[in-house]
Amino acid sequence: MNREQQQLAEGVLFTDEYQLTMAQMYFRLGLHETPAQFDYFFRSYPDYGAHKAGFCVFAGLDWLLDWMAESRFGPAELDCLRSQTGRAGTPLFGADFLAWLGRHGSFEALSMRGVAEGRVVHPHVPLVVVTGPLAVAQILETALLNQLNYQTLIATKAARIRESGRGQLVIEFGARRGHGKGVTAGARAALIGGADFSSNVGISHVLGLPPKGTHAHSMVQAFLALGMSELDAFRAFAETYPDDCVLLVDTIDTLGSGIPNAIRVFEELRRRGHRPVGIRLDSGDLAHLSLQAAKMLDAAGFPDATIFLSNELDELSIWQILTQIAEEAGRNGVDADRIIGRLAYGVGTRLVTSAGDAALSGVYKLVALRREGKWVPAMKLSESPAKMPIPGDKRVWRLYDRRGKATADLVAAREEEPSAQQEIVLRHPNETSLHRRLRRGDLQAVEPLLEEVLCEGRRLLAPAEIEQMRARRRADVERLDPGVKRLMNPHIYHVSLSEKMWQRKQRLIAAMRAGLPRREPLPPDPATPTSA
Amino acid sequence: MNREQQQLAEGVLFTDEYQLTMAQMYFRLGLHETPAQFDYFFRSYPDYGAHKAGFCVFAGLDWLLDWMAESRFGPAELDCLRSQTGRAGTPLFGADFLAWLGRHGSFEALSMRGVAEGRVVHPHVPLVVVTGPLAVAQILETALLNQLNYQTLIATKAARIRESGRGQLVIEFGARRGHGKGVTAGARAALIGGADFSSNVGISHVLGLPPKGTHAHSMVQAFLALGMSELDAFRAFAETYPDDCVLLVDTIDTLGSGIPNAIRVFEELRRRGHRPVGIRLDSGDLAHLSLQAAKMLDAAGFPDATIFLSNELDELSIWQILTQIAEEAGRNGVDADRIIGRLAYGVGTRLVTSAGDAALSGVYKLVALRREGKWVPAMKLSESPAKMPIPGDKRVWRLYDRRGKATADLVAAREEEPSAQQEIVLRHPNETSLHRRLRRGDLQAVEPLLEEVLCEGRRLLAPAEIEQMRARRRADVERLDPGVKRLMNPHIYHVSLSEKMWQRKQRLIAAMRAGLPRREPLPPDPATPTSA
Repeated sequence: MNREQQQLAEGVLFTDEYQLTMAQMYFRLGLHETPAQFDYFFRSYPDYGAHKAGFCVFAGLDWLLDWMAESRFGPAELDCLRSQTGRAGTPLFGADFLAWLGRHGSFEALSMRGVAEGRVVHPHVPLVVVTGPLAVAQILETALLNQLNYQTLIATKAARIRESGRGQLVIEFGARRGHGKGVTAGARAALIGGADFSSNVGISHVLGLPPKGTHAHSMVQAFLALGMSELDAFRAFAETYPDDCVLLVDTIDTLGSGIPNAIRVFEELRRRGHRPVGIRLDSGDLAHLSLQAAKMLDAAGFPDATIFLSNELDELSIWQILTQIAEEAGRNGVDADRIIGRLAYGVGTRLVTSAGDAALSGVYKLVALRREGKWVPAMKLSESPAKMPIPGDKRVWRLYDRRGKATADLVAAREEEPSAQQEIVLRHPNETSLHRRLRRGDLQAVEPLLEEVLCEGRRLLAPAEIEQMRARRRADVERLDPGVKRLMNPHIYHVSLSEKMWQRKQRLIAAMRAGLPRREPLPPDPATPTSA
Repeated sequence: MNREQQQLAEGVLFTDEYQLTMAQMYFRLGLHETPAQFDYFFRSYPDYGAHKAGFCVFAGLDWLLDWMAESRFGPAELDCLRSQTGRAGTPLFGADFLAWLGRHGSFEALSMRGVAEGRVVHPHVPLVVVTGPLAVAQILETALLNQLNYQTLIATKAARIRESGRGQLVIEFGARRGHGKGVTAGARAALIGGADFSSNVGISHVLGLPPKGTHAHSMVQAFLALGMSELDAFRAFAETYPDDCVLLVDTIDTLGSGIPNAIRVFEELRRRGHRPVGIRLDSGDLAHLSLQAAKMLDAAGFPDATIFLSNELDELSIWQILTQIAEEAGRNGVDADRIIGRLAYGVGTRLVTSAGDAALSGVYKLVALRREGKWVPAMKLSESPAKMPIPGDKRVWRLYDRRGKATADLVAAREEEPSAQQEIVLRHPNETSLHRRLRRGDLQAVEPLLEEVLCEGRRLLAPAEIEQMRARRRADVERLDPGVKRLMNPHIYHVSLSEKMWQRKQRLIAAMRAGLPRREPLPPDPATPTSA
């Protein structure tokens, strides 16, 4: 695929065929400009098999907005659609529809509310709410899901890896086994969610961060093949990078050759006034080798040299390495916390592919259409209650308890103001009997989660810097109950409906069940305001 | 990320930082233009947990070549590198090195041999062999691994899905939950490996295939919200697409509403002279619903209507659905094969993320350097024998038995001609005692697998059409022993070394073990030719 083809593949035609065939059908019926509301939400946390997430970190919105601003149906895109024929050999898309697409086929008519990137988020809560002409909002679905699902998946994995690594340095280096050019989005999401740096040069520069790296085994191999030694290789590298020297010590024999040679080169650097950065371990029993390496580096007078670990790491393997270090340190006469405090992690494949659960179950669902000035909720009845989207126009609130910990996310009708209520009723989204009451006095704060992002195509928020998004993530993770952060079997965070929203949902289910098939629209909620 | 940033992120800087720091070090030592040979191979088949691949389908090479042709260190890329500073605050890359990169920092000096895309491939066999200046070949690593690992992973998954679906129509629609823009590569790989079409509009047009689709639940929901019915929605869709009408029947109640309404609309289409395409089932017990749907469609006189299945499908769930249909069909008075023969599969997330094993373990290893006119093999000793690359310059042969089935891949020294030998000894790559002898007369064919792809940057092969690559895949899959194609616990295909190659590897291991550290180069193989 050359660059021209890539622009075609990744522009507005980065969508599913049925979005376009549906759009044309709406056009034929005169419904294409009916105002519609779609909610983006995910149904369950990533489940990695042996372990499971108890929270997610939202990411991807800004890149979606960039894509929306640059994508429209231009001549090349319209030519493609014009060339499509149906089974009968006639054009699939009519000239009138294509002319309309040429005039209105951009995302300039859409408005959007959304959660800020970097924030901690939970299932069933609308994270992005899109309103605008039905046909256009429908065409957006594929690209929106692609960006938000993947980046949220990876930001979440990165947050888990950071937690399990106890906040030590994490470097993302997943480009070589991640999924095609998607790894640039993966690197960004990792940097928001928990990685400090990426080894990926291009995306690091785009995001304003320095790329990081050490060296490969091939460097030592090349020296050996040319009749030189590992020590020669290390010396040459240290000569070139005297102040940025990290040496990979496992090409020949980690304890017998790699670490002793590294220490020799570090001593030479020190004599010349430089401070070596550290070593990297990429194979073997990383816990045991970390302990031994720490002892050897300490004995040589390099107590601050970092020990970088890599090799198919993820949150679980890091957690196991640290557990093993804690158990073995005493026997080895070393302090476990001091060793753990000098570790750093290179995390690649298992981070950017979200090993164990490689997709987030995010969906984009029609929840309301505007008819005669009112939002009419839309439902899909066949699904189990747990899969039904929350219908109609709404707002989302996060409730913080007296400790300042987030205790629940509340989905309420658009016009509700939970922060002004004396008592808030939290209804389980599906279980009739489950509810919880919170007095306003027991809450430190009631925070609206959705911000105005886009007003008829105009961006209302400046793109955030990576550091701002990280600050949001750190603050939100800090405000999570420790049980929610457990790597395995996490405590379940409450996502609730307001009493009013719950009643609306029940009323709609009853109306739909009673009235199918029928000729009347679903009842608009009595309290739905008449303006969008 | 806007388009300008994307070009920077996805151009030649789509690499890992350490490739560049190593390249500069080679430059400082005057080694940067030493001819080097790197092999690309993977170490094990994808292992999905409950099931495992017994073969892979190679893909991604052509897109890699496109990328190589367009990527070079231009002013924007050099500016990025110039801005990088080390820990001491001084520039990380010297002006002399950057000047060299500006002059030689493209892939025009590289040559490449490779397996044709679409071919069946196996572990440890070099699939791409890159030769050229050490620094440039090193910088290529990240992008090469990214393209080949992901596309081979997905082509493999698609081949499995096609096999388990018994060759019925497969449509890829993974864009919404795949990994960012990587899904375009995923769609291509799926189309090579086993999918007939993709729902992704842009990439389908780039590849010259028509995109395919049905409609979404939201269409029926929109009609309901506007006071109309599922039947109204189906009629409107059929009116717009009378010859391409596939109706999604599970928005309300599949058996009670969706299928009866679809049949009513199909009857109306038939009266107007059109032939409906079929229905789509997206939830519930797909085996049971397929049976019931087939009976209802048969009874209404639509025995040829296709039944599209979707909902988190993969090779295992498809296999289970077909098994269940085979078991239940008799009890329902229908013919299982006839039902199975009218099914088609929409496969999304689990295809483009390779659910169960989301990364291929492909690596790019330095295997030889040229010194005084000879290729000197490079080895990495610390690894287990199973992980060691096969050293030095080599060729790869596929052996077909008398039935015409592939019986082994043989990795031989460059100068060997197994097709001319009376007896071929196949050595297990690691186990000394395991070997097998084949007489030439017992073999139908001995086929060289690697083709000349690139000669000093000049492309020797025209890009293949999707259909050509599919033809290769079909022919190769046909020539696999059925045991190798089993979804679970597949029979192990033999990948062997020639006696000569095996001896070379043993000699090198012995030389390295004996001589470390040493000042002499590893011995070149006595029979290595002096020309590349």
